[in-house]
Amino acid sequence: MAFVLQSVLQAPQQLGALPAHAEADTDLMQQVLEESGKFVAEVVAPLNRDGDEIGAQWKDGAVTMPPGFRDAYQAFWQAGWPALACAPEDGGQGLPAVLEAMLYEMLSAANHGWTMAPGLLHGAYECIKHHASDELKARYLEKVATGEWLATMCLTEPHAGSDLGLCRTKAVPLPDGRYALSGTKIFISGGEHDLTDNIVHLVLARLPDAPPGPKGLSLFLVPKFYEDGTRSAAVCERIEEKMGLHGSPTCVMRFDEAPGWIVGEPGKGLNAMFVMMNAARLHVGLQGIGLLEAAWQKADAYSKERRQMRAPGGTAKAGEADFIEQHPAMRRILDAQRAWIDAGRVVAYRTALELDILKHHGDAARREAASRWCTLVTPVLKAAWTDQAFHGASACLQVFGGHGFVREWGIEQIVRDSRVAMIYEGTNEIQAIDLLLRKTLPDGGAALLTLLGELSADLGSDEQAVRAKSQLDGFASFLRERLLPRVTAKDATADLPHWLADDFLRAVALLLMAWAWARIGATPGADTARWQAARAGFWRWVWPEFGMRVAMMESTLAG
Amino acid sequence: MAFVLQSVLQAPQQLGALPAHAEADTDLMQQVLEESGKFVAEVVAPLNRDGDEIGAQWKDGAVTMPPGFRDAYQAFWQAGWPALACAPEDGGQGLPAVLEAMLYEMLSAANHGWTMAPGLLHGAYECIKHHASDELKARYLEKVATGEWLATMCLTEPHAGSDLGLCRTKAVPLPDGRYALSGTKIFISGGEHDLTDNIVHLVLARLPDAPPGPKGLSLFLVPKFYEDGTRSAAVCERIEEKMGLHGSPTCVMRFDEAPGWIVGEPGKGLNAMFVMMNAARLHVGLQGIGLLEAAWQKADAYSKERRQMRAPGGTAKAGEADFIEQHPAMRRILDAQRAWIDAGRVVAYRTALELDILKHHGDAARREAASRWCTLVTPVLKAAWTDQAFHGASACLQVFGGHGFVREWGIEQIVRDSRVAMIYEGTNEIQAIDLLLRKTLPDGGAALLTLLGELSADLGSDEQAVRAKSQLDGFASFLRERLLPRVTAKDATADLPHWLADDFLRAVALLLMAWAWARIGATPGADTARWQAARAGFWRWVWPEFGMRVAMMESTLAG
Repeated sequence: MAFVLQSVLQAPQQLGALPAHAEADTDLMQQVLEESGKFVAEVVAPLNRDGDEIGAQWKDGAVTMPPGFRDAYQAFWQAGWPALACAPEDGGQGLPAVLEAMLYEMLSAANHGWTMAPGLLHGAYECIKHHASDELKARYLEKVATGEWLATMCLTEPHAGSDLGLCRTKAVPLPDGRYALSGTKIFISGGEHDLTDNIVHLVLARLPDAPPGPKGLSLFLVPKFYEDGTRSAAVCERIEEKMGLHGSPTCVMRFDEAPGWIVGEPGKGLNAMFVMMNAARLHVGLQGIGLLEAAWQKADAYSKERRQMRAPGGTAKAGEADFIEQHPAMRRILDAQRAWIDAGRVVAYRTALELDILKHHGDAARREAASRWCTLVTPVLKAAWTDQAFHGASACLQVFGGHGFVREWGIEQIVRDSRVAMIYEGTNEIQAIDLLLRKTLPDGGAALLTLLGELSADLGSDEQAVRAKSQLDGFASFLRERLLPRVTAKDATADLPHWLADDFLRAVALLLMAWAWARIGATPGADTARWQAARAGFWRWVWPEFGMRVAMMESTLAG
Repeated sequence: MAFVLQSVLQAPQQLGALPAHAEADTDLMQQVLEESGKFVAEVVAPLNRDGDEIGAQWKDGAVTMPPGFRDAYQAFWQAGWPALACAPEDGGQGLPAVLEAMLYEMLSAANHGWTMAPGLLHGAYECIKHHASDELKARYLEKVATGEWLATMCLTEPHAGSDLGLCRTKAVPLPDGRYALSGTKIFISGGEHDLTDNIVHLVLARLPDAPPGPKGLSLFLVPKFYEDGTRSAAVCERIEEKMGLHGSPTCVMRFDEAPGWIVGEPGKGLNAMFVMMNAARLHVGLQGIGLLEAAWQKADAYSKERRQMRAPGGTAKAGEADFIEQHPAMRRILDAQRAWIDAGRVVAYRTALELDILKHHGDAARREAASRWCTLVTPVLKAAWTDQAFHGASACLQVFGGHGFVREWGIEQIVRDSRVAMIYEGTNEIQAIDLLLRKTLPDGGAALLTLLGELSADLGSDEQAVRAKSQLDGFASFLRERLLPRVTAKDATADLPHWLADDFLRAVALLLMAWAWARIGATPGADTARWQAARAGFWRWVWPEFGMRVAMMESTLAG
């Protein structure tokens, strides 16, 4: 992780150019990463198994978290971890977002369920900071910044999943300037728990005179407890029985005329929530990387300890077997996942760095480039790396043979836990539509073509770089000359881009990986066997999907 | 199912040529399929949820099966279902293997856990019938043929998973002609349960003077209860906690000088077990098809009932959403899985028909062709369709959005249950090695090239057929001209075919599907929207992987 951050991405130099992060040098970063790793390994990781097996328990509206979860969370916020990247004036430490991102990757690898609780905190902080009234900020901002209170994002309703415009929860003005919220929200992670003394719900709802659709949605804040200690009428009706992620209660929340405050302007609820949703998507991409890393570590260790059958060119004595890692089919699985993780880190940390640059850079053109990166890369990161977390964890399970299907080794938990990340914060299909239909087609591909050009220009002239460049340039031509003209042709049907979207996102993900591997390859220190095996794994076992995706798009375009 | 069997594969005509199955006409087949469906739907399917949630329970060496499992099994064997394809002289009905295969596909779709119990029965029957002494047959054959007693296959040991040659379980001759078996076997499905009054264990073990390796293995039969009612020293030490398949107890079995009988010749244990293992592989491929069908049925129904967002060209009124099935990304998932299931049925039922032909056909050349088909296609069916069961069930889960991750809809259970089928009866990587290294390379590709030629010659001259033919012929050229010369070149390393094996198996699977879809397309009655959508789904969303696999092999061959 440090190598990617400091050597491949040269974060100290990048951040050194930002006055707000002038102090973020190599030593400080190293120290934060090491302390993060220590806390995660010692406090959070040991709770993962009980989190799965005992899980969060609901009784009469209250949720008891798995053993140790509350103590670990109390230690977490008291040590200042949730406030790592919050502004000092709000009680935070003012460190770069990229360090927070890496902390959350580690947390997700160690204990996905536990990490769900603080996972939305930073987004809630930004949302309140930028949209709430001063009065509301005075009450809630510091509590959320420091993580003393946890927050939720109440969007989905029983009849409205991906389409928030259909939300029906009502907000009726009260004489005291507040609003009475009524409705049911589902799939609310951490809607109820015993980790903190209060919970801050951010709720999408509709004012009485609001127009139908997304423009009629406003955002409200409803706490579990008001300042006078009264319990609000935001009640957890039940928690879902799930495939995995048992350490995180997925709540059905009922609001019964619960008084709350509006956050931001009426009708601008989606806008206010947008910053939270975007932060959440990067966060979910990092979950994917963390979960895949956890699966890889388990499989790698097992493959080095256990012997199974004779491998071609193996070294076992007669009557013995070779190590699992010596078998080509298993080597392939391990190297391919390693290729995904390492490239994923380059892409994800770069995205977090671009968020820092977007916030603090003095040059408007650089901020615009940062914004372009985050806008285009975030959906790709979310979709491709959560997809890989599940499929790659399943591949890692295969390394264990029959033992992989047994609970004992913990690998099957990763497969179960990771599956949800392909769904929440916008399904991966929604991310693909976001990338192609909302972010590429409306400007005639301009932003994406610029990004592809930047990625290509960013590479040198070594063999890997030339290979990646030619692919980036080739895809730009395909986009400019084949896809865009065909999709915008007069006789094109409205559904055509929808049929292309999934393949398009996968192709962009693979191009980002090609760029990342060329960048890694050009970094001094990446000539070790460990990096070379993963890079070879990328070109050999991962990259060939690119040709298939382009062929599928060609065939769709040809009708 | 009936359309594939009777129209696409023309089973009545095929079987009509076999004197043993002259009575198996269209009416009889239809009747057996309908009765199978009725029994499965009414008796077995309703127990699936409890099978997962309550599961098999171990206490003090005894295993209590989930509610209703015993009654359902008792009804199953008393109705004669296990004996469907056993010989009349052994207490069976003498019906074709293909009808039994279809019964097991239905059973797996309805309740994978329950189906594990009788799943090995037919293989055990064949094993005892062909290898046991007359004395042993007199004691056990009819009980196993009728399913009054269930059977197990005790192969794996804690230190020896895929490599049976390392088994250590000992068999020491006893004065009465029996052998005392001692050792520990793991991953024994149904090693202990309360479904039947007795259990027949078939155990691989080593005689005192046996050579090391696979040639030192002999096969033994150890019952749970001897004829005098004594309990044998074959004890279930515990059952595994698993990712899924909770309705099937996966047992650790300890044999403490348990007396048993030898089955077949000393040192020929693997040979005797081979018939069982091959039957089990076809059976597992059918599980894959059944599980994928179950997932598809759930997703298809949900996509037709639930509305979500606006679809391009959708028909919803303002303020409403379109049906999930109207969204291209979801249509793609559904059509692709349908393409896998339908083609899987053609390939699997054909395999079962070839087993019938192999057993009963009068012409030696025809029997040889049947043997070739079964030998080459069985590993492909096992690996590709169990892989698809898991990945396709996960894709079907995606159709449910967040609801897919919740237990309520039952789709996540299919994902969990199906994962094991990629591992047991030889991992899918072992199947790939079996196909390429054991069955293709040793005869210089002769058998596979013959099969590819037969598939190609089997097709007509319509557009689909021409397309499939050209791919079959092209792959034959690739095999003959590129792969074989390179792999057998003097400078080729021993590991080269191992690096190719997985891609090779996938390519063959896709070719079998191309053949199957061409066959379906040429069948009167396949011009309906249902079949056309699935066939289009095959060429559009499934087939493109073929090019990727060949490209990966080309790149591996190029070194």
